[in-house]
Amino acid sequence: MPRFACKLEYHGGAYCGWQRQRDLPSVQGVFESALSALESGPHVVVAAGRTDAGVHALGQVIHIDTERTFEPFRLSEALNHYLKPAQIAVLDCVRVSDDWHARFSAIKRHYLFRILVRRAPATHDDGLVWHVKRDLNVEAMQRAANHLIGHHDFTTFRSSICQAASPLKTLDEITIERIPKPIGEEIHVHARARSFLHKQVRSIVGTLERVGAGAWSPEDVRRALTARNRAACGPVSPPDGLYLQDVSYSEDPFTS
Amino acid sequence: MPRFACKLEYHGGAYCGWQRQRDLPSVQGVFESALSALESGPHVVVAAGRTDAGVHALGQVIHIDTERTFEPFRLSEALNHYLKPAQIAVLDCVRVSDDWHARFSAIKRHYLFRILVRRAPATHDDGLVWHVKRDLNVEAMQRAANHLIGHHDFTTFRSSICQAASPLKTLDEITIERIPKPIGEEIHVHARARSFLHKQVRSIVGTLERVGAGAWSPEDVRRALTARNRAACGPVSPPDGLYLQDVSYSEDPFTS
Repeated sequence: MPRFACKLEYHGGAYCGWQRQRDLPSVQGVFESALSALESGPHVVVAAGRTDAGVHALGQVIHIDTERTFEPFRLSEALNHYLKPAQIAVLDCVRVSDDWHARFSAIKRHYLFRILVRRAPATHDDGLVWHVKRDLNVEAMQRAANHLIGHHDFTTFRSSICQAASPLKTLDEITIERIPKPIGEEIHVHARARSFLHKQVRSIVGTLERVGAGAWSPEDVRRALTARNRAACGPVSPPDGLYLQDVSYSEDPFTS
Repeated sequence: MPRFACKLEYHGGAYCGWQRQRDLPSVQGVFESALSALESGPHVVVAAGRTDAGVHALGQVIHIDTERTFEPFRLSEALNHYLKPAQIAVLDCVRVSDDWHARFSAIKRHYLFRILVRRAPATHDDGLVWHVKRDLNVEAMQRAANHLIGHHDFTTFRSSICQAASPLKTLDEITIERIPKPIGEEIHVHARARSFLHKQVRSIVGTLERVGAGAWSPEDVRRALTARNRAACGPVSPPDGLYLQDVSYSEDPFTS
């Protein structure tokens, strides 16, 4: 059974998340249906990041095993054909070795969070950004974020139902970028780590927003981290602005 | 009756265009309904550009006359409240003099056309770009576009039902910009003129795409223009990628 790696882009708004759930539309479920049009299942589809309900992807990476051998470009074209009209697209597809694993071979995950800051509601980006009406102090947000970089116990910043064995994670980067717009601005939060806890990025972004709004100080975020207590976390951000942007492997399997 | 100028952003996908039509949802119709929640009509709402079905706006400008006097910021907040959940937003609102006219006072209109060039279908930008699967030669497109700049008879590039008295227009600028993406690229066509004919931008973009694909030469576009014959036009592009980006006035009424 040949194994293929695919890079996926999707709009998460219509789905209960990546993972298949009974009676709920999922990205995995729609993808497996498209695959079933090519050959009968059951199929093994493994994703690098199990994105939550409403969370988007710009570069989710998955692997699949097929019965037949496909030319990778033809496989991506066929999958894109059968994926329509779902807002899920195969950006790239390559053959990988049988022991290559989308999840376990990944060495870094990069999440992007988009905050739209302006009075007027979002239109074209409705559902694709977190709309915040008040100006945010980006410098204070970055100072607060700097307390989270490195190896820490992230109990404060993970969902109470997180199933990871340990709350210890190494956050390699949180960079906060200001993108001026003709009206208002976008604030992009880039978070990079080998792996993340459940709702970790949204817990961090929701807390940093409080700092940007002036309700919390950067020092409050350091104290929340060291409290190692979920109750010390700020409000969790909505999923709308969150994107799995990129997954890194020791050797990039994709050509483009 | 005080007069206000508003800058609007909207997603045109759900509408028959700006202009109110019986039994069809229009941007104007939705906007007038929001205004009716503030004071009873009928209302006069005049737009700088009567965008077609499916065409979007980043900076449409309109004027309205109200019975009561509003503080402009409060008026924009109230309109945005009543516009929900339509993907139409008031970005800015200012008081203008009684003889200021959104349409007749405009001295320049700027349209943006977004082409997404890649094999995979659009996801987040579905309905917001023209998806073209083959690479386009941007340099050839710009050479072709240069033939259209200036004062010309644009009969070839206007809809056969265009109601403008004259096909003579002065196109000040067509600039074609390449925006690299992690996968594929976007091509942005910027068109600026005092005013445009019906479907002029989409007729031009659809023809330039043929040049980019290598089916037409830049010289073919010059010949199409001088033919002054609608039949000489290339295919008209879909509306999805078209945005009324900006409207200029001799004095900008907006502060932000």
